[in-house]
Amino acid sequence: MGKREFVEKAERCHPGVRRWKVRPVSLVKTVRDPEAWQGWRMQALPSRKPLAERSFQKGARLILDFGEELVGRLQLTLRSETNFNDSPVRLRLVFAEFPLEIAERNRKGSFTLSSAWIQDEIVTLDDMPQTYTLPRIYAMRYVYIEVMATPNRLVFEEVCFLAQSAVRDLLPPLPGFSPEEAELDRVAQRTLRNCMQGVMLDGPKRDRRLWLGDLRLEAQVNALTFRRFDIIERSIYLLAAFPMEDGRIPACVFDRPEPYGVRSCFLADYAFLFADLLWFHYEQTGNGTLLQEMYPVAKKQFDLFRHCYEKGVPDADRPLKGFIDWCAELDRSVAVEGCYVFGLRKLAKIARFLGKKKEAEAFEAEVEFLVGELKKRCFDSNAGLFVSGKNRQISCASQIWMVLAEVVVGDEAARLLGRMDRMEQIVRPVTPYLHHHLLEACCVAGERERMMEHLLRYWGAMVKKGMNVFPEVFVENQEFLTPYGQDPRINSACHAWSCAPAYFLRRRF
Amino acid sequence: MGKREFVEKAERCHPGVRRWKVRPVSLVKTVRDPEAWQGWRMQALPSRKPLAERSFQKGARLILDFGEELVGRLQLTLRSETNFNDSPVRLRLVFAEFPLEIAERNRKGSFTLSSAWIQDEIVTLDDMPQTYTLPRIYAMRYVYIEVMATPNRLVFEEVCFLAQSAVRDLLPPLPGFSPEEAELDRVAQRTLRNCMQGVMLDGPKRDRRLWLGDLRLEAQVNALTFRRFDIIERSIYLLAAFPMEDGRIPACVFDRPEPYGVRSCFLADYAFLFADLLWFHYEQTGNGTLLQEMYPVAKKQFDLFRHCYEKGVPDADRPLKGFIDWCAELDRSVAVEGCYVFGLRKLAKIARFLGKKKEAEAFEAEVEFLVGELKKRCFDSNAGLFVSGKNRQISCASQIWMVLAEVVVGDEAARLLGRMDRMEQIVRPVTPYLHHHLLEACCVAGERERMMEHLLRYWGAMVKKGMNVFPEVFVENQEFLTPYGQDPRINSACHAWSCAPAYFLRRRF
Repeated sequence: MGKREFVEKAERCHPGVRRWKVRPVSLVKTVRDPEAWQGWRMQALPSRKPLAERSFQKGARLILDFGEELVGRLQLTLRSETNFNDSPVRLRLVFAEFPLEIAERNRKGSFTLSSAWIQDEIVTLDDMPQTYTLPRIYAMRYVYIEVMATPNRLVFEEVCFLAQSAVRDLLPPLPGFSPEEAELDRVAQRTLRNCMQGVMLDGPKRDRRLWLGDLRLEAQVNALTFRRFDIIERSIYLLAAFPMEDGRIPACVFDRPEPYGVRSCFLADYAFLFADLLWFHYEQTGNGTLLQEMYPVAKKQFDLFRHCYEKGVPDADRPLKGFIDWCAELDRSVAVEGCYVFGLRKLAKIARFLGKKKEAEAFEAEVEFLVGELKKRCFDSNAGLFVSGKNRQISCASQIWMVLAEVVVGDEAARLLGRMDRMEQIVRPVTPYLHHHLLEACCVAGERERMMEHLLRYWGAMVKKGMNVFPEVFVENQEFLTPYGQDPRINSACHAWSCAPAYFLRRRF
Repeated sequence: MGKREFVEKAERCHPGVRRWKVRPVSLVKTVRDPEAWQGWRMQALPSRKPLAERSFQKGARLILDFGEELVGRLQLTLRSETNFNDSPVRLRLVFAEFPLEIAERNRKGSFTLSSAWIQDEIVTLDDMPQTYTLPRIYAMRYVYIEVMATPNRLVFEEVCFLAQSAVRDLLPPLPGFSPEEAELDRVAQRTLRNCMQGVMLDGPKRDRRLWLGDLRLEAQVNALTFRRFDIIERSIYLLAAFPMEDGRIPACVFDRPEPYGVRSCFLADYAFLFADLLWFHYEQTGNGTLLQEMYPVAKKQFDLFRHCYEKGVPDADRPLKGFIDWCAELDRSVAVEGCYVFGLRKLAKIARFLGKKKEAEAFEAEVEFLVGELKKRCFDSNAGLFVSGKNRQISCASQIWMVLAEVVVGDEAARLLGRMDRMEQIVRPVTPYLHHHLLEACCVAGERERMMEHLLRYWGAMVKKGMNVFPEVFVENQEFLTPYGQDPRINSACHAWSCAPAYFLRRRF
């Protein structure tokens, strides 16, 4: 049971659903191509008669390209070529964000997550003619249709996709965008749009839930694009509605079938960043009421873990569990402490705004103390970089969060990022989530060019690989990388935490 | 487009749908058993905790026995054992009328009909907990459930079947029925009940349509059991609503998605028997209006084919296409002519009832003429049996229809059936449809004991094999026989044309 008040407010902020009909742009086939992402691309078939004027028998296979990734339901209008249909029609449908999902659809998968995420359906339809809308929602650009059984030749009178999102139209590029920047911006907007479903979804194909950490990045991009603050507020209310018994805010919540939080899922870095999410939202909207309602929730996260840091010596054997990045070997302790400091600075701002001067001053003092401690404890003056954990691991994540937490500032921060770049033995970012923070760190350090260079290189490589949305995981030359077993079919190709470009390209500073 | 008037009247006769909830009686497993039908039987598993108190992980398989064959929808109430469900659940469900369908579910099938008749579904459910009612209707006694994917242990809080039919309850046996007779009666009633879905279906699992010939038998059983004459009248109106251009009545019609007839499907014997269906219905209900409306339709069937018979020499090279029985080598010409005479006798009765004395007399004269011709042309005095076609084939079908058409009567008819029985080189009945007519012929020839003996032997053998409904095809010692390729999984185990026992056991004459 969530806090009823917040659940009710969340429902009042529901962004609603816009729906629009999209028709396929062409019939395509999968083609092996070593240059293409994962070795596969789609190639348009020479145009023949319109689909509705053709008919298909048992065993027929076709792949439709809808031109861009969409989220919603497939609708089929089918009839038998003859005047009657004496038995059911059975179809296999594979919905794909990227070509591999269709090209290698029959490979036996091995996943650490539920294989039911694979968008592969078999449907049986008793009556012909009929218009059938599949009940589930898929994230897809391509649909593979196989006629598994049909008594007569089958006609696809219409195949269309009923796309849905809180927003429909992408914004035009800003004046002055290069074609490459315009494309990056468009792909980022499309990525975010597809995830705007009731709450800010992690990914519309897989992991259909709201994550606190991801929401913070999505709120940034939303503020410079669609400016749909209702969905941000609904998301905030839902996160606050399901605290754990001790007051910790969950790392994620679900809004279906009924909104509920996940008791077992807590990530300290996300919890500390909640204050930043709130302050950013206030800056965009001026919604002080929300700040007032949420201040106790944000403050509680620091109260609960202050003991870890107040003596300046966090317990290295029992570090707080944080996310930071999808990277098994990463030591997160310094980065998580960076999040604590970063968040606490924002909490102090909120406290000041709410007139809680004493609390604000205490937070500011705590920040100052911790900044000093971090420099003392964690800065390796030989390497000129921050180190993390007992093994004094050097990672990009640590440097990024030390900059974001303003443990180092100005030129010092810029030099830190320079040394980080030149360091060869360093744990590098894996997910666009940490890459987003890298861009932010560049901005904070006044390194806008460097930021743009990284943005164009990292996100630009995805676009060059033919992506029209940005994925959950992208590491160049590791195209089959998956955090969930051996089979990248389970990867999410459209993941909201990857939509950084629209924010950084549109931000003027 | 059907005749709107008849379609509208059909809709006014719609019998409606009764629905009731049935819970499984036990968990079972498939067991090899050479004595069982097709070598498989279901064996109840020792009772453990109630299903709702158990949980299942990926790969789990269970088979539920609902105690009797039912028609309707499966409803699953599912939840995750943990408090959340982060990904979809995928289930495979196989609905079975008989054990083989589950035991050999993974065998690759080879069918001449659409393999989509096989009741094998994969469903993916996004939200937990949820109550999910599968959208399609199945005919089943057993359900196999396989947990193909689940993020957590899955609990089946409730599994139930929402059975449906125009009638729900079976009638108690008549006083004096032996236990064996009571069981035959119950199985027959259940068979008919399961087929009473809007129209009299051929079979609820496969061939979900209304056949004219089958309806005639079903009307007989219905008259002595449920007496739901609305469904009979709806079926009659629908058949009459979709004549072919020349006025022939179709052999079958569909009532879904909208009622429609099948232009290409005509069977002469069925068309001639329409008059008998009407007269029987009048005798049961006294509905003279329907007789009046349908007389032109029934009469038309004879007008169209009178030229085939009026010279007493039907064209042996181009026999009328009739059904009579599922039997490839059967020569149907004499049997179809028997149906013509049999139907014409009933048409004459209708004409007399409607005051069309002249027409009635003409029909009676025609009957007399044809009876004489058939005896002359088709009776082989050496064999003492009727022969059919150029090759003078001797079949049970010919004898049966000569008796039913009263070409031979009284003791002569009884002797004909006796000779038929003793004949070794004879084409025998395959389907319960022709066996029904054999029972009827026995009755007409005054051979009630013989009729009962055949009923107990033929239908009794099905019950002994564990059937709780009567199938489309039954030939002892040919358990894998299928008219549709090599795989009996496509056979229909509950076929309305097989429900004879309830009629012949309950009839008093």
